[in-house]
Amino acid sequence: MPYFCTMNFTVQILGSSAALPTSQRNPSAQVLDYNGQLFLIDCAEGTQMQMRKFGISMRRVSHIFISHLHGDHYFGLVGLLFSYQLLGRTEDLHIYAQKDLEQIINLQLQVSQTRLSYPLFFHPINPEERKIILDDDKLTVETIPLEHSLPCCGFLFREKPLPLKIDKRFLIKEIIPISEFARIKAGGDYLSPEGVLYKNSEITIAPPKAHSYAYCSDTLYSERIVPQITGVDVLYHEATFMNDKRTSATEKFHSTAQQAAEIARQAGTGTLIIGHFSARYDDLQPMLEEAKRIFENTVLAEEGLTISVR
Amino acid sequence: MPYFCTMNFTVQILGSSAALPTSQRNPSAQVLDYNGQLFLIDCAEGTQMQMRKFGISMRRVSHIFISHLHGDHYFGLVGLLFSYQLLGRTEDLHIYAQKDLEQIINLQLQVSQTRLSYPLFFHPINPEERKIILDDDKLTVETIPLEHSLPCCGFLFREKPLPLKIDKRFLIKEIIPISEFARIKAGGDYLSPEGVLYKNSEITIAPPKAHSYAYCSDTLYSERIVPQITGVDVLYHEATFMNDKRTSATEKFHSTAQQAAEIARQAGTGTLIIGHFSARYDDLQPMLEEAKRIFENTVLAEEGLTISVR
Repeated sequence: MPYFCTMNFTVQILGSSAALPTSQRNPSAQVLDYNGQLFLIDCAEGTQMQMRKFGISMRRVSHIFISHLHGDHYFGLVGLLFSYQLLGRTEDLHIYAQKDLEQIINLQLQVSQTRLSYPLFFHPINPEERKIILDDDKLTVETIPLEHSLPCCGFLFREKPLPLKIDKRFLIKEIIPISEFARIKAGGDYLSPEGVLYKNSEITIAPPKAHSYAYCSDTLYSERIVPQITGVDVLYHEATFMNDKRTSATEKFHSTAQQAAEIARQAGTGTLIIGHFSARYDDLQPMLEEAKRIFENTVLAEEGLTISVR
Repeated sequence: MPYFCTMNFTVQILGSSAALPTSQRNPSAQVLDYNGQLFLIDCAEGTQMQMRKFGISMRRVSHIFISHLHGDHYFGLVGLLFSYQLLGRTEDLHIYAQKDLEQIINLQLQVSQTRLSYPLFFHPINPEERKIILDDDKLTVETIPLEHSLPCCGFLFREKPLPLKIDKRFLIKEIIPISEFARIKAGGDYLSPEGVLYKNSEITIAPPKAHSYAYCSDTLYSERIVPQITGVDVLYHEATFMNDKRTSATEKFHSTAQQAAEIARQAGTGTLIIGHFSARYDDLQPMLEEAKRIFENTVLAEEGLTISVR
């Protein structure tokens, strides 16, 4: 009898472009849907329009994570905050970003004499340290220090393992006192009143694997991140250029498609999503092929694309 | 023999929505094209994407005018400034707006450690006074004080009258010394060496009418603006609501379609463009009909619409 998990865990791309938007591509933004709760990762100009376009409920966004303070990763944020105001939002909203962003938000609220209709919690982060910045019932979010021209971090979303489940077939056979449940779910064996010892593995069902998603943009090729993201199910890694431009990539503190794939290979991730493409590339197929030569299970971040993290 | 003017003078709508963008409509932005030189009027989130979509050369924008500091009129500006940087712009750029906007721009430049590659001139304006803020060879731009919940002004673009032109048929008949040309073009008569007096009207051709465009958003219904915009060829006036919501419009310092049309009627304008539509209206035809009942020559601001000011 499998341990069935109905939780949704998907990531949807809202923007796949590097700093300059193109007629086809918006700059960086993604929505992580964890069982209906939405986490917005970066929020470039036009993000709220993209959410409308793809039928995403803006209201369900509870937490926003901003990797760094280049405009192509946050210029849509203040507009979104004002739209929430106009929509009469009352639910809490949490922003995780470097502290300067709070000043940018507050200045624009002040200039327009706006007092928000909802509680806004600003959580300053230090992009240079690896730290769990959100820890709730089901998920942790951890910063991934990256190497960019401005202080910058990625985010690692890691589902918490579900507890063991007591096998229903055993519950039918034996009457177990409720007081024993927590101990068994935590891995303990069970000694029946008749003195029979049941090993934990005989009477429980293992939970499904806990899944994880890592977002790494913007960054130089950096093997330092590999230990932290090893084994993630889905990795988004920036690939601003193709490898023939790797000198240019390095100068601009960006990566190439080949380098992104190399990180995925070393980290043994499930799927690699590459994105943050320079506006110079109209056709992205050569970029995909470049990555696939190193890491076969690569996909292109394309506006609207939804990938399951499970 | 007509005095033929080849100058282009058009306005194109980039955003027709009030504060909340919809899936069909972007918030406020327009481009005025005066003989190839582009003036951007307001610059909401997504403006640079709209310019790309409609094939407008971003580089040809030399002047940007921001009516007020509600985000739906300027949240696309800083992104545009950064895109110019990435595109390697070197040409001067002039911004006319209230002084707080300079602080908003500078804070975001500073946080991202950006030094612009092009000269940016910030011209602070006082939205409460009627004043010529730009006066070049061909055109003046004047503030139009409006009544809104924040200090706000419209902009009146007025072409300068061309000088009189000396009739070529007369130049063939009479040899006029070049030293006399300026005087005649300014309206003077001409006394020939033979003592014949030619009246100015006999020897010159009148220039075509100088044209003008007025942009009035956001504002309460206010007859105070009528004297300033009387006789403009094209008037853009906000029409956030229909007239059944005029109480709501007044409370929010906005106008209705009927009120916009009433202003156009009183000012005797050529064409009225209504825009800044509330997201509550999917179908804009009833709004258009409401305005047309008062002022027949009304059109809806629709994304991409281009109207000639001549």
